[in-house]
Amino acid sequence: MKEIIIIVEGMMCGGCENRIQKALKDIEGVAEVVASHTEKRVKVLAKERVEEQTISDRIEDIGFKVV
Amino acid sequence: MKEIIIIVEGMMCGGCENRIQKALKDIEGVAEVVASHTEKRVKVLAKERVEEQTISDRIEDIGFKVV
Repeated sequence: MKEIIIIVEGMMCGGCENRIQKALKDIEGVAEVVASHTEKRVKVLAKERVEEQTISDRIEDIGFKVV
Repeated sequence: MKEIIIIVEGMMCGGCENRIQKALKDIEGVAEVVASHTEKRVKVLAKERVEEQTISDRIEDIGFKVV
């Protein structure tokens, strides 16, 4: 497993956090996701084979900006 | 042009509203979108050929629930 921290712009509330968490948990190999709109960060615990780009792409697909 | 009102669950702030507005404005034929998290409603002004299903699908793609 590995931990990936992604800086994300556009989360403004708990609803935004939930939406990112839900979308990322659908990715095969992702074990845990914690999103924080106050810290502008998304922390992902995932299997080694999960690529960071896959996670970033999914975050952008649902309308947030990865910086 | 026609006006479509869609009831949406999951918007909790202005960030949620903005994300829906941005996603729907990308649909060809959509002229105007107003999302309100307090009213749980998204109002769309679009050309006749734009199908309501296309709009609902896009809203659900980005993580909200159409009821």
